[in-house]
Amino acid sequence: MMERREPIKVTEAIERVMQYGAAGGIEHIALEQSMDRVLAEDVLADHDVPPFDRSPYDGYAIRSSDTCRASTENPIALSVIGHIGAGEVFASTVGENQAVRIMTGGPIPVGCDAIIMLELVEEVSEHKICIKRKVKPNDNISFQGEDTTKNAVIVRKGTRINPGNVALLATFGYKQVPVAKKPTVGVIATGSELLEVDEPLVPGKIRNSNSYMIMAQLERAGAKAIYFGQFIDDLEVCYNQVNTAIEQVDFLITTGGVSVGDYDYLPEIYRRMGANVLFNKVGMRPGSVTTVAELAGKLLFGLSGNPSACYVGFELFVRPVLQFFLGNPLAYNKAIQARLGSDFAKPNPFDRFVRGKLYFTEAQPVVTPIGLDKSNVVSSLGEADVLIVLPGGTRGYEQGSSVVALLLEYAEGDAVFLNNYQLKERQHGH
Amino acid sequence: MMERREPIKVTEAIERVMQYGAAGGIEHIALEQSMDRVLAEDVLADHDVPPFDRSPYDGYAIRSSDTCRASTENPIALSVIGHIGAGEVFASTVGENQAVRIMTGGPIPVGCDAIIMLELVEEVSEHKICIKRKVKPNDNISFQGEDTTKNAVIVRKGTRINPGNVALLATFGYKQVPVAKKPTVGVIATGSELLEVDEPLVPGKIRNSNSYMIMAQLERAGAKAIYFGQFIDDLEVCYNQVNTAIEQVDFLITTGGVSVGDYDYLPEIYRRMGANVLFNKVGMRPGSVTTVAELAGKLLFGLSGNPSACYVGFELFVRPVLQFFLGNPLAYNKAIQARLGSDFAKPNPFDRFVRGKLYFTEAQPVVTPIGLDKSNVVSSLGEADVLIVLPGGTRGYEQGSSVVALLLEYAEGDAVFLNNYQLKERQHGH
Repeated sequence: MMERREPIKVTEAIERVMQYGAAGGIEHIALEQSMDRVLAEDVLADHDVPPFDRSPYDGYAIRSSDTCRASTENPIALSVIGHIGAGEVFASTVGENQAVRIMTGGPIPVGCDAIIMLELVEEVSEHKICIKRKVKPNDNISFQGEDTTKNAVIVRKGTRINPGNVALLATFGYKQVPVAKKPTVGVIATGSELLEVDEPLVPGKIRNSNSYMIMAQLERAGAKAIYFGQFIDDLEVCYNQVNTAIEQVDFLITTGGVSVGDYDYLPEIYRRMGANVLFNKVGMRPGSVTTVAELAGKLLFGLSGNPSACYVGFELFVRPVLQFFLGNPLAYNKAIQARLGSDFAKPNPFDRFVRGKLYFTEAQPVVTPIGLDKSNVVSSLGEADVLIVLPGGTRGYEQGSSVVALLLEYAEGDAVFLNNYQLKERQHGH
Repeated sequence: MMERREPIKVTEAIERVMQYGAAGGIEHIALEQSMDRVLAEDVLADHDVPPFDRSPYDGYAIRSSDTCRASTENPIALSVIGHIGAGEVFASTVGENQAVRIMTGGPIPVGCDAIIMLELVEEVSEHKICIKRKVKPNDNISFQGEDTTKNAVIVRKGTRINPGNVALLATFGYKQVPVAKKPTVGVIATGSELLEVDEPLVPGKIRNSNSYMIMAQLERAGAKAIYFGQFIDDLEVCYNQVNTAIEQVDFLITTGGVSVGDYDYLPEIYRRMGANVLFNKVGMRPGSVTTVAELAGKLLFGLSGNPSACYVGFELFVRPVLQFFLGNPLAYNKAIQARLGSDFAKPNPFDRFVRGKLYFTEAQPVVTPIGLDKSNVVSSLGEADVLIVLPGGTRGYEQGSSVVALLLEYAEGDAVFLNNYQLKERQHGH
């Protein structure tokens, strides 16, 4: 009478999804728009940095040999024969006992082999300075290529562009930046209980929060959301909508309708479409009813209608495959080891992903569960910045236990799910 | 002949800037656009969550008293008198030995006091189920208000909106969201050595990278950049540009022109404008020439032309005051304690802010300096996700030393600069 589903392990479920992971296309965008996009090609230095021997300070370009007998008692006078502003080049050669005033960034003039800082010079007149100390050859010169040499890889393909990367792109002339195209992800909400956000509440109904949450998660993950609306639990309506939507997107996410209840039509829709169901039950809490199917290489994610289950399902299954699409090799949420900040008494045969908050301390970071952690609890979603991973077992967890946490708001990811931590944890007896 | 400037401490410099910190205005935007914006008013629950007693599972609503003698040997039969889909309300009262099929999220019908999960029921026919275990009163009921009660503050004013907050805003009917207006920040680059990004390199010149970097830092900080272009080191040109720009923005940033060199006109421009110079030298590396002035309550930030000094100057002085404008009480970059990952041998009388990378370990996190850390080095900017704070002193720092690091890419901030860590560190003898 009801379908019995066999849960698979969460790591197995992620592997099945990631088999369909593939990089998307490339587009070129303006440098000013490139922040937070993912670089699609290695950025090469088109010149040495510095591009020429230059002065790191405001001061005087000199010949160090002229100062070899200089001291407080024996100040050396040099003739100032010119000045070099930033962006200027000194045309002639500097001779014995001559100096050139130079600004920060100015190229070292021919004949000179050191810079003396402005603060260390006595400016006797416009054309004469005194120096009271020995200056060594090569002092205060930023040499051509000492930072970076031409053709070196400066930023790797797959990097999420931050302000420092933007500076590098500008330095090397990338007015247009090759970035990964954003994956286009369709979002459909199902559920006869759903009201639009601006509708007043009526008995038995709730407002649709999952669609907006997922659109925000998509934005955080670097994807572009297309919202197809919310639909009542009607098989024909849902089927037509899913069938139409899948054509227009790289990935499709539905929320709700994936349980085995009378109104959960997603399984039937997948059957009608001829989609290959990768799994429909995962041994985890929340999110056990998460279903993923594949049709002609495109992934359809059937996330739970419960807000927390929906949230976790997105982070574990959708986010990594979006990162693959973007060419980001660190596709998984960063996993760290931490101490559990409070008891989590309730044992569970399945792996739990508990919303929590990260605290830095003078020792190992601490992660503390937030709220009740029932899967329909929304009020803790906003505060959470980690998912605490509590492998299934017959015992709960005590405060101070070593646990693994997945960072939800951290720019950098991991190349492997859970960074292999979870398996280690299991060997310790959970 | 040259101006002698007295450096002030970085903490003192930040205090002087923050005296002019003030909240900006409020605007209402669509929920779909609210991700990463800063909430301008507390969000209140407009109803209890759950809004009514409801079922957290697909199953049957029952009267627990009917099962008080149920066991494997003594299964109890109940008549199924109806079903409740999500969004539906059951019209009649459930009597003795009756049950109602209920979907996840469905409201508990009158007369019932428990839910039994679908998996634990034997469905004999469409109208009859058997139960082989006792069910306790209130089992599997999500009670009205158990998550959140009406009028509770759900998300605090000043919160940067993340996907969880978006879900909460949707749940409580915020189709339009009150957010802090983004501060408008003008960016002007000065320097005769600067080429546009798409110009070919010529001797003595470099491409303008600071403007693009700062625009990206502004974006990361939640501000809106207006780029006024780059100008040669000409006093009249710069003066007119600054004077025009300041009218159109909430804050103005210039890069370059703040040293005491012959072509550094910013000090003279501030004088002509009648601006109040808060400081023009800070005891820090890089960024010692950072200058901040105030005119009619507006702040003018004169950042160094060196990329690293410019970057650090932005994060330390500009970013916090932008957060104040946004109403974010955690205005400073998050400070954490960490172990230094490698020696930093060079002693310096001034506080250093060294670009570094954060590594999580099985103990305290480790921060490792990146690159050469000369202030003109750009290639390390992209990799850095922390600024390692090395207080000035007569000794360098050894690998494993306890240091403080400012997180550059972390969503959450601190209410106090350095979270008071640095002072403690100084007492330890640096």
